[in-house]
Amino acid sequence: MDATAPSAVELAAAVTEQLRDYLQERRRDAAYIGADYAVLTEAVEEFVLRGGKRLRPAFAYWGWRAVAGTEPEPHVLRLFSALELLHACALVHDDVIDASATRRGLPTVHKIFTERHRTNSWHGSSEQFGLSAAILLGDLALVWADDIVATAPIDADAARRVRRVWAAIRTEVLGGQYLDIVNEASGSETVASALTVNIYKTASYTISRPLQFGAAAAADCPEILEAFHELGTSLGVAFQLRDDVLGVFGDPAVTGKPSGDDLRSGKRTVLLAEAVGLAEEHDPIAAKLLRTSVGTDLTDAQVKEVCQVIESVGALAAVENRIDTLTRRALQILNAAPIDAQAKSGLTELARLAANRSA
Amino acid sequence: MDATAPSAVELAAAVTEQLRDYLQERRRDAAYIGADYAVLTEAVEEFVLRGGKRLRPAFAYWGWRAVAGTEPEPHVLRLFSALELLHACALVHDDVIDASATRRGLPTVHKIFTERHRTNSWHGSSEQFGLSAAILLGDLALVWADDIVATAPIDADAARRVRRVWAAIRTEVLGGQYLDIVNEASGSETVASALTVNIYKTASYTISRPLQFGAAAAADCPEILEAFHELGTSLGVAFQLRDDVLGVFGDPAVTGKPSGDDLRSGKRTVLLAEAVGLAEEHDPIAAKLLRTSVGTDLTDAQVKEVCQVIESVGALAAVENRIDTLTRRALQILNAAPIDAQAKSGLTELARLAANRSA
Repeated sequence: MDATAPSAVELAAAVTEQLRDYLQERRRDAAYIGADYAVLTEAVEEFVLRGGKRLRPAFAYWGWRAVAGTEPEPHVLRLFSALELLHACALVHDDVIDASATRRGLPTVHKIFTERHRTNSWHGSSEQFGLSAAILLGDLALVWADDIVATAPIDADAARRVRRVWAAIRTEVLGGQYLDIVNEASGSETVASALTVNIYKTASYTISRPLQFGAAAAADCPEILEAFHELGTSLGVAFQLRDDVLGVFGDPAVTGKPSGDDLRSGKRTVLLAEAVGLAEEHDPIAAKLLRTSVGTDLTDAQVKEVCQVIESVGALAAVENRIDTLTRRALQILNAAPIDAQAKSGLTELARLAANRSA
Repeated sequence: MDATAPSAVELAAAVTEQLRDYLQERRRDAAYIGADYAVLTEAVEEFVLRGGKRLRPAFAYWGWRAVAGTEPEPHVLRLFSALELLHACALVHDDVIDASATRRGLPTVHKIFTERHRTNSWHGSSEQFGLSAAILLGDLALVWADDIVATAPIDADAARRVRRVWAAIRTEVLGGQYLDIVNEASGSETVASALTVNIYKTASYTISRPLQFGAAAAADCPEILEAFHELGTSLGVAFQLRDDVLGVFGDPAVTGKPSGDDLRSGKRTVLLAEAVGLAEEHDPIAAKLLRTSVGTDLTDAQVKEVCQVIESVGALAAVENRIDTLTRRALQILNAAPIDAQAKSGLTELARLAANRSA
């Protein structure tokens, strides 16, 4: 029960290694389908290997450690890396949905393929080609993620437990994504609807389910899955609230996202819902400004003005306060959970990282 | 070994019944994610249940019968119905890729959600919302299809065999779709590149792999899988060539697709490649007409003119000839295969249906 614990960097590197091997295998196996297809499968590989914090496999790792106490074997780490391939699908499709131009400081997949079409002087719309390639690339990442889970060499009972979590995480994240676009389209202003999106698009997807995925692979432990659900919900919402704050107040050089992006796209965040709610009560002019400007093509000066309003009505402080409360609650749940001591400290580190990051 | 055989209509109805039950279960299980999400899960159900020939599950059924000789139990039919949910993903994403307005005579999914956005007078672009919802709906159909295969109550060896076919069919169909858009963009004119698309997007996807899927569920029979590969390739290419002919010469009232759609979109079919090749040899003016007009926004009169050229250069006859040769070859392979006699006659009927249909 006292396996040494890898650092976050070592763990991410080990996951990346699994992804690299797996994607090479799959690309080799698919080579018979044709040289043109190799361009798409290579783009999957590039997208997955070019960056990412490997946060979901890390939570799965600690979910395993929490229950098993031991270091997982490489094939178990391979299983956990499926979460990263699923994430590749979610990101690539999300970038199409949000019409985002950059991701991790580089062009998004649909932009890369749009550019490829343009460079080749091909027929038809370059944008439509880029969009199409990105849809197919995301589908392929999802398919290959599923294949990892389906063929993992674990015993039948573990496979059944893991499958239940895998079914839930995929259905939930698609729900979160759909609720997100509906909220944005309908201009929903409530904190409650923004929180629902946070729970399914982020908390369940990034933390609760990955933790459960790892624990389910290790043993039959329903009470620990329940604790991970509660822990993950608190910590995951805190994680998303941090994301929302960074999306408005973050340093573009660090986040890799242009400043003001979330405000221009009209993302229905808890931060914005708090701001509208508080402004409504105390500052009708500010409320009107938020309503008429968020979701439009703001200038940099207007972005700055909206940021000042969000801060001055007290929304930033309220959200920082929520992050703080949720993180503390998560750490309490973690502390009380009947799990391996080393996993507790590993998860505590990961929790602080998730809630207090700058990118 | 003498179970009675269902008619094509009875078989399709039995598959639809499995899909109806499964989708109701999944929708009920996902209800906790929120009422707005129920709109999307309902749309999956509507799309899947509103039509379709259930051709892929039918081939799986006959693949099973060919090897087992017996009628599959309901849970095996449930497994085969996964192919139809996978198909829902392929169709919905393909309609986005092709920017198609109608499918089976009704609006496509992205059009339905575009209209929903417009009717609600929501914020932002109605088209972008429709596109986004269609991407997510296709993803969900794919995820739920995978869940059927992963949780099928079949023995471990059968599950392993089925998984191998399932991994191949999904990787291949995405390859076929990607090669298709590359051919269309690059304006590829060769019969060979059009045939490669036919093999992966249609033959493997619609016939070979579904047959293998059924056979693999029934027994370990590598030589029959090989025979199904050859049978399916011939018959599947014939099936696609029929589709290409219908896409140009079919009756819109029967096919449910507007006349001339394939010519306007510039689809790189074998029919078109044959026409360009033959015109090149015998009729340079016709070749020029094909090159400059296909893939542009043709009037109905121009569509008629292009159709006449395709016919007059002998391309229609050449493709009909190919369909005939391929179908006869498929029937020979079928006749020689060491499989159940009733499955032979069932597959013969299905083969004639696939090659000679009008929609």
